[in-house]
Amino acid sequence: MAEGSDKAEFPLAERRLRLGVVGGGQGSFIGKVHARGARLSNRWDVVAGALSSRPQVAKESGRAWLLADDRIYTDYRVMAEREAARPDGIDAVAITTPNNSHHAIAVAFMEKGIDVISDKPLTTTLDDALDLVRRQKETGLVFGVTYAYAASAMVRQARQMIREGALGKLQQVHVEYLQEWALTPPKDAGAGAQWRVDPSIVGPTFTTGDIGTHCHHLGAFVCGRPVTAVRAEFHTLGPPKALEDTAFMHVRYEGDIPGTIMISQVAPGAHCGLRIRAFGDKASLEWNQEEPELLHFRRFGEPARILTRGEGAGIGVHAARFVHMPRGHPEALSDAWGNLYEEFAIAVEARRLGRTLPEGLLEYPTVEDGALGVKFIEAALASSQSSGAWADCTLQF
Amino acid sequence: MAEGSDKAEFPLAERRLRLGVVGGGQGSFIGKVHARGARLSNRWDVVAGALSSRPQVAKESGRAWLLADDRIYTDYRVMAEREAARPDGIDAVAITTPNNSHHAIAVAFMEKGIDVISDKPLTTTLDDALDLVRRQKETGLVFGVTYAYAASAMVRQARQMIREGALGKLQQVHVEYLQEWALTPPKDAGAGAQWRVDPSIVGPTFTTGDIGTHCHHLGAFVCGRPVTAVRAEFHTLGPPKALEDTAFMHVRYEGDIPGTIMISQVAPGAHCGLRIRAFGDKASLEWNQEEPELLHFRRFGEPARILTRGEGAGIGVHAARFVHMPRGHPEALSDAWGNLYEEFAIAVEARRLGRTLPEGLLEYPTVEDGALGVKFIEAALASSQSSGAWADCTLQF
Amino acid sequence: MAEGSDKAEFPLAERRLRLGVVGGGQGSFIGKVHARGARLSNRWDVVAGALSSRPQVAKESGRAWLLADDRIYTDYRVMAEREAARPDGIDAVAITTPNNSHHAIAVAFMEKGIDVISDKPLTTTLDDALDLVRRQKETGLVFGVTYAYAASAMVRQARQMIREGALGKLQQVHVEYLQEWALTPPKDAGAGAQWRVDPSIVGPTFTTGDIGTHCHHLGAFVCGRPVTAVRAEFHTLGPPKALEDTAFMHVRYEGDIPGTIMISQVAPGAHCGLRIRAFGDKASLEWNQEEPELLHFRRFGEPARILTRGEGAGIGVHAARFVHMPRGHPEALSDAWGNLYEEFAIAVEARRLGRTLPEGLLEYPTVEDGALGVKFIEAALASSQSSGAWADCTLQF
Amino acid sequence: MAEGSDKAEFPLAERRLRLGVVGGGQGSFIGKVHARGARLSNRWDVVAGALSSRPQVAKESGRAWLLADDRIYTDYRVMAEREAARPDGIDAVAITTPNNSHHAIAVAFMEKGIDVISDKPLTTTLDDALDLVRRQKETGLVFGVTYAYAASAMVRQARQMIREGALGKLQQVHVEYLQEWALTPPKDAGAGAQWRVDPSIVGPTFTTGDIGTHCHHLGAFVCGRPVTAVRAEFHTLGPPKALEDTAFMHVRYEGDIPGTIMISQVAPGAHCGLRIRAFGDKASLEWNQEEPELLHFRRFGEPARILTRGEGAGIGVHAARFVHMPRGHPEALSDAWGNLYEEFAIAVEARRLGRTLPEGLLEYPTVEDGALGVKFIEAALASSQSSGAWADCTLQF
Repeated sequence: MAEGSDKAEFPLAERRLRLGVVGGGQGSFIGKVHARGARLSNRWDVVAGALSSRPQVAKESGRAWLLADDRIYTDYRVMAEREAARPDGIDAVAITTPNNSHHAIAVAFMEKGIDVISDKPLTTTLDDALDLVRRQKETGLVFGVTYAYAASAMVRQARQMIREGALGKLQQVHVEYLQEWALTPPKDAGAGAQWRVDPSIVGPTFTTGDIGTHCHHLGAFVCGRPVTAVRAEFHTLGPPKALEDTAFMHVRYEGDIPGTIMISQVAPGAHCGLRIRAFGDKASLEWNQEEPELLHFRRFGEPARILTRGEGAGIGVHAARFVHMPRGHPEALSDAWGNLYEEFAIAVEARRLGRTLPEGLLEYPTVEDGALGVKFIEAALASSQSSGAWADCTLQF
Repeated sequence: MAEGSDKAEFPLAERRLRLGVVGGGQGSFIGKVHARGARLSNRWDVVAGALSSRPQVAKESGRAWLLADDRIYTDYRVMAEREAARPDGIDAVAITTPNNSHHAIAVAFMEKGIDVISDKPLTTTLDDALDLVRRQKETGLVFGVTYAYAASAMVRQARQMIREGALGKLQQVHVEYLQEWALTPPKDAGAGAQWRVDPSIVGPTFTTGDIGTHCHHLGAFVCGRPVTAVRAEFHTLGPPKALEDTAFMHVRYEGDIPGTIMISQVAPGAHCGLRIRAFGDKASLEWNQEEPELLHFRRFGEPARILTRGEGAGIGVHAARFVHMPRGHPEALSDAWGNLYEEFAIAVEARRLGRTLPEGLLEYPTVEDGALGVKFIEAALASSQSSGAWADCTLQF
Repeated sequence: MAEGSDKAEFPLAERRLRLGVVGGGQGSFIGKVHARGARLSNRWDVVAGALSSRPQVAKESGRAWLLADDRIYTDYRVMAEREAARPDGIDAVAITTPNNSHHAIAVAFMEKGIDVISDKPLTTTLDDALDLVRRQKETGLVFGVTYAYAASAMVRQARQMIREGALGKLQQVHVEYLQEWALTPPKDAGAGAQWRVDPSIVGPTFTTGDIGTHCHHLGAFVCGRPVTAVRAEFHTLGPPKALEDTAFMHVRYEGDIPGTIMISQVAPGAHCGLRIRAFGDKASLEWNQEEPELLHFRRFGEPARILTRGEGAGIGVHAARFVHMPRGHPEALSDAWGNLYEEFAIAVEARRLGRTLPEGLLEYPTVEDGALGVKFIEAALASSQSSGAWADCTLQF
Repeated sequence: MAEGSDKAEFPLAERRLRLGVVGGGQGSFIGKVHARGARLSNRWDVVAGALSSRPQVAKESGRAWLLADDRIYTDYRVMAEREAARPDGIDAVAITTPNNSHHAIAVAFMEKGIDVISDKPLTTTLDDALDLVRRQKETGLVFGVTYAYAASAMVRQARQMIREGALGKLQQVHVEYLQEWALTPPKDAGAGAQWRVDPSIVGPTFTTGDIGTHCHHLGAFVCGRPVTAVRAEFHTLGPPKALEDTAFMHVRYEGDIPGTIMISQVAPGAHCGLRIRAFGDKASLEWNQEEPELLHFRRFGEPARILTRGEGAGIGVHAARFVHMPRGHPEALSDAWGNLYEEFAIAVEARRLGRTLPEGLLEYPTVEDGALGVKFIEAALASSQSSGAWADCTLQF
């Protein structure tokens, strides 16, 4: 456990970068969240958008975001083309559309040499995901995926503590994510709820892709080792739908470390109940995203400790980088998105300037992380279809 | 959900009953806890004991408990014989010894017509458990098993609420029990720790029998329906030992309701982390035994509610029976043991007086519940030995 | 802060002591609580009682408690006389009646050489309180007062830590006790509520005497120094009544350490909200009686710590004496009463046997503590009647 | 209590407004916080700044903020002049300097017709405060004061609930704010700590002006009625300094409703412990700024409820306006600052466009609120200097 804080500031920006957004029009939730994170980071101006494919919605949404009229698009391909042609064109695009369009949109912008920030799950098929991995390797473009919870300062702290041995030998890891919103029948919920349970849009799973991937990423990120295998049991407990809304899983992390993942979107009373508990032979860590400022650290045979975001008091360099306000002045999910967009900006600027960043400086999720998430989805689905047999979750890049 | 309280007092006692205790000598933990519950209930005097098979320990322990010298025994068979012969002999025996002796001790006292209160797990083999079930049926003796957490007032409240439909249609149930004490290698821990990992004493499992059975009972009790099947994955993560110290399970409750059980005794920072979460299609309940006064009740689309032990404020008759102090004057595990011993006393007195009690008045765990626990242990073990195949948990009585 | 636990067991009992109870009949709350504590300690048999002055209530209550018919009294004077005359007479009396009778009852039993355990506040006038102090000194009888919260293991732990310097230099202390029950107009509440607001029974204050005295005692006990002065503002905010139901106070502890006391019995949502926060120049402690197992210990510039009742993990000898169940198996208010009655028993037995106990072994509240509470009541009242002028709270014994 | 949500969106912006900042250079904390709020609101571009009076610091800070070189100033008077002269000059200035400069800076910008957003306390003397009130009245300029905690969605919810009678008749209000940072001797702390205890800069109080004013504003804002009188006891408990670092107060709210305020900046373990508890005769509300998403609502005789930020589930229109992410996706202090800057922007735009806003739409703190805070500081100081006599806190505007 790092004693004291040795806050290593990120490099200063040369200029504010220009971000375009695809998706995020009226009725969308996640597009606005991306834009808030970008603005909060003070590294980006949101200057262009294909916020909707419906012209009227695109225009109204764009104006609500205070975009210039000539940078409000209805077709992402047109946007990619025109922005690439402008001297003040966007530096990166944020893809905030439903899952099945991520691949094509990413390809369109990558082909124009524009860096990509994509929502998760990365794609609806592993082939598409691997295609993006390959394209990223070939182009060297920045490709970030918005597993935003992992950009919370105290998640970074947990990761650093585990890497530095604060738990002793890691022995078991439990991640859960419970929500209630899918108790509302899709037909009575908004458009955002409907596409999420439509296999033609969302891909082969509902809850596993939506929030299971967050558990998968968070567990691997915090523990610093990938999930190697999963066995899963899928359930559809809530209103009838084609896909699972609940799943219980056993997993293995590299080094044969066992764990569980439990997800449900029909758990009344649960709002955004993402929680990780990691146990070593000396101590444990627990983090709950609804109380993101607190990291419970419990050593065997000692009083429980609560680490809080801020400088000093046991906070290491990775969390300290994201201290925008002192301890007790709570930061939360907007700030985590800001952290993520700050890292994206540093990466994008470095690529544009040909600057090499210190090893380990940035920890944002990459296209490989996105592809591992898609592999996890397919493995969990396969396992659930074969009575819970173990399914491989690994990818070689 | 029962509105208001209609506290139905238990029948008054005719006299204080006489309890004998087997096990519980110096160094034992659970024997003292039984005795505290008995005394707290004001329904019992602890008058006799075979607190240890070692004469010196038996004598010193008995004197520490203020037993009369002639009622301090070293052999439970002698105790059964002599107590049965006394006009003021014990009304019931509490068996607080290691698992493998429960059956023989219970038989010895049942053969003398003495009611039995046994610790869990009931026995180390299903045959023994079923033998006790058969003997209880034949004799009509009272046979209680001390799943004491289930005697917490707010567990009774949860059970009543689910029975009365407060959750809507029950859909998933999760129970976990995490502890840390087995991180200490058995050789460095006390005698109480050593026998618990010795298969010749404890039976075929460690953690599943010790705390898994509590999860099994609590889930079934709160939800009012038995566990029908289990698939289990056993791990030995802590100091080397012959048996599992951690297990992850999927279960089914009657009506094909899915759930999970997660147990570990090598989870640093966890003391006695028994927690149940039950989700219906309308609401959920959550209870954590380390905060036993609180029952979290969360209806979909409404503010979360916290019910607290006491009268009124939504507390039903079953919990209200166990209100010894007003709301906010916290009761905890000693009180739960007192509740349990109060129920045992009512049952024992009723049997002795030939009195019929109202249906559903008492909810203490019976020998059948104990046998179901043993069946669960065997099923979980069998599943873990066959790659997590589903194993049947049901018994027909 | 004591590292590790060096549990020093109390001396074993020679025999179970005999307790008589005055007050506590049907409808009473506190009498039953005393009796539960006595039984839980396994140091006492409750053998006699003047549970009510109404013969029918006395008889029914006595039988409910399983007292022998000839030891059910309706007049405490008769009880004192007859019990003193019996060879198996009571060793001590517990006074659980309304305030204005404490003095006379205590005198009646002291005159017979019987040790006294009295509820708080000790008396309704300072003269009466000082008379009891004088009588106790003259007789050498044991005289305990049931400030029971202070017998919670973690309160003892807090006291030991402050004495040993864990906070650095003590600088400020805040105690509050909020309840809601007096929102019910006295006429609609039970008899127990009515006498508490009747000046002819309860004395010159309602809330200050009822729960303010708990704050006063707890602050002084935990910090190890008396309250020297108070300034108070009394309010009657709830249903009309002759006395205050709310008070805000500033206090001074010995050494000119400032603090506050805040009490109200008309605070909706508060059940038994007694909380103490003590701040030094290095660290702070916080204890809330509704979560009695937890002691929050926060050092400046370090992660917050939570100490929990149990052995090891920083728990000192005073709290360790009261470990009946391991950490995480929650004890609460019944157990605190048991602790208190265990200490009373040790004191009573020592007096009877002429045994000298180690200095500092017992920490139960004495008649002097009771008298200081009465002085505090009078001082707070006087202050509130003189626009909040400082009033002296000290007594010389 | 408003059932359901009828989210009334704020009017859309015509354009992004231009903000200048005075103060906030390297080493400053609060300037950055203002800027984050402005950016998060998407209603402002931060385009100019006199971030420091030291040229090198001003330049480096301005570049770190990505300001254009010609809009980085070292003298706020020059900034006011030049910005007023630019066609693209700032619409408003945020004053984030130490207290004693607020008045002069505000005057300089008001004289140029530029709207003002000032940190608290408004000024160091009541005369200066009243001068700003007068100037604002004369000019009609927008003048906001950044009591930012009051812009938390759940504080708005609490205010709406009290106004709508959710508590019944309001009876008592308690506000506290505890911090630990001033335990570090000023000489060892940063510049930001030093000026805060220097009477020539900070004015006649330290803690009362710094965090006491937050308590004063929050209590009045939530309860919808001003503080009318205060009696205070000041203490300097921490490292030696000329001013108080701790104060205990009794207050009266309009309608003779009593309350308390407790503040300390030398309370180890407390980070930003601002908490309000308001009790009526039917129910209470509690909000703690370190858990800003939760509003505890407790009705007498009912289970406690926890309202959470989000739509539906009892959330009214005022809180719903500030729902940027769904329930459970936590917002915190950055978001509150964003809310505040959103309101400021709406007010500034409306003034510039001559648009009349619906009554009660905006609830940001005004120059009058700021002046009341200064009056409160002076009253508390006067009371503490006269043995805690009641001092008037009212102002007539």
